[in-house]
Amino acid sequence: MALLFFSEGDDPVMWREALLKHAPDLDFREVDTMGDAAEIETALVWRPPAGLLAKLPNLKAIFSLAAGVDALLADTSLPPVPICRMVDPSLTTTMTEYVLLGTLRYLREFDIFEALAKEGKWEWRMPPAPHERKVGMMGLGVLGTDAALALQRHGFEVSAWSRTPKSLAGIVCHSGADGLDPFLADLDILVCLLPLTAETRGILDAELFAKLKPGCRLINVARGPHLVDDDLLAALEKGQIAHATLDVFHKEPLPADHPFWRHPKITVTPHIASNGRPETAAKTVVENMERLARGEPLANVVDFDRGY
Amino acid sequence: MALLFFSEGDDPVMWREALLKHAPDLDFREVDTMGDAAEIETALVWRPPAGLLAKLPNLKAIFSLAAGVDALLADTSLPPVPICRMVDPSLTTTMTEYVLLGTLRYLREFDIFEALAKEGKWEWRMPPAPHERKVGMMGLGVLGTDAALALQRHGFEVSAWSRTPKSLAGIVCHSGADGLDPFLADLDILVCLLPLTAETRGILDAELFAKLKPGCRLINVARGPHLVDDDLLAALEKGQIAHATLDVFHKEPLPADHPFWRHPKITVTPHIASNGRPETAAKTVVENMERLARGEPLANVVDFDRGY
Repeated sequence: MALLFFSEGDDPVMWREALLKHAPDLDFREVDTMGDAAEIETALVWRPPAGLLAKLPNLKAIFSLAAGVDALLADTSLPPVPICRMVDPSLTTTMTEYVLLGTLRYLREFDIFEALAKEGKWEWRMPPAPHERKVGMMGLGVLGTDAALALQRHGFEVSAWSRTPKSLAGIVCHSGADGLDPFLADLDILVCLLPLTAETRGILDAELFAKLKPGCRLINVARGPHLVDDDLLAALEKGQIAHATLDVFHKEPLPADHPFWRHPKITVTPHIASNGRPETAAKTVVENMERLARGEPLANVVDFDRGY
Repeated sequence: MALLFFSEGDDPVMWREALLKHAPDLDFREVDTMGDAAEIETALVWRPPAGLLAKLPNLKAIFSLAAGVDALLADTSLPPVPICRMVDPSLTTTMTEYVLLGTLRYLREFDIFEALAKEGKWEWRMPPAPHERKVGMMGLGVLGTDAALALQRHGFEVSAWSRTPKSLAGIVCHSGADGLDPFLADLDILVCLLPLTAETRGILDAELFAKLKPGCRLINVARGPHLVDDDLLAALEKGQIAHATLDVFHKEPLPADHPFWRHPKITVTPHIASNGRPETAAKTVVENMERLARGEPLANVVDFDRGY
């Protein structure tokens, strides 16, 4: 069976090589070498052009190159086949590492010291200990759970909020609409790792910010549309939020004239928090292709109703 | 027996309280409430004025509030009594946390993204994995060893250099003058946690920088005089060193007109990398006072010949 690969961000050569290690007979094709569309049975994609997948009459499954499938689901012409989220150890470890880095940076107040340095000001402050800082994790999927546990291992007080009730040893887990306010009330650092769905779009807005302890810091590593950009700018202005670290944006690349660039209280990174590596991710893709060939249920299938 | 406390940076009230928990009968005195100097048998100090300790005729031991005793040893009028370095779990955990943060910040290239953000430039880069980055630890005392092991646990390739040969599982340990060049040759990040002695003063100079792989990053959390400031500025200018994170300086507070402030390739923090906490450190001080009372050898005694 043939696989169609499409991504503007991932290297097809590395992916082809990594997949062939686990499936030497794989017929790996790209859009410009696709040949007969009827021969394509699986697709491995990140942000394919809308309509591309609809042109494959015998497509049996879509494998996402990303953990978040919101961009894929936005294509209204998608054929009615299972979509599998990417679950890759590297995707998880890079995300957890980024969240740990961002959280440690706030714990040790590098945002404050960077601002003071611009003025040549030396202000000694006793560094707070991790157990004196409460980090709230929004989203307890594979990535959110791993990051929350890593923060807890480092000594932070960690709480979490998710759509459905979850349970994690040592972490206070809130859930649902009723659980949001108590979750937000006393956080020092809020991390967003929610899937992007109709329910979570724009969840990081003025209403939510007003429920945070003044001076809370924000890390958004989920999707740009979780955040209402203007509401963040207003919350930073008022000091409701002290600083934000943003890796994802409504429009990527973030336009050169966007106010987030150069904002003294915002750190911008170019969607690098989480990255799959073909050498580790290829195995999980091939395993799913083998399940498909054997007629078994696929792993990490997206639930269209919940949107992730 | 009475203890004299002196520090310009530590809170005497917190220290008194913490010490009294472990030694309820302790006679805790400060300079302005010292009373009869002949009653003082121990001193717990950070950067006491030169000559202060010489005025205590019955002093039996000096306990440093810091792990580094270079400032203490610079007082040529010190009475000939044992000096004990501070060994405190918080001193170690805060330092290791700072080194991990600084190292992760370089691994995930936040220094590059911060520079790009100033220009509104989005440049996606595949994040390197920790095992693809080699961190070199100069100094394997209590702090250097703990930080090196934490970096190794995180997945970095770690090597180390110390005055005398040491051995740490999984870490290539170099030592002595002959070991320096091979240690420096292929580092991505160099961390200095050496004690400040006649031998190590100015060790971070043009000669050393020239032996590093071009584009190496530097973290100095030891003492300001390890570094030749002008040599660092020249190495940054040439790109020999890509970025530096400095927590310690020749003169502290770092003077407002010093070029390190506002330098686009230098992060300055105000000597906050490592901090003892009275609640954890007091116990080790009291244990040493008890050893002194029983006539037993003290722990963590400074070797005057080697200077730490």
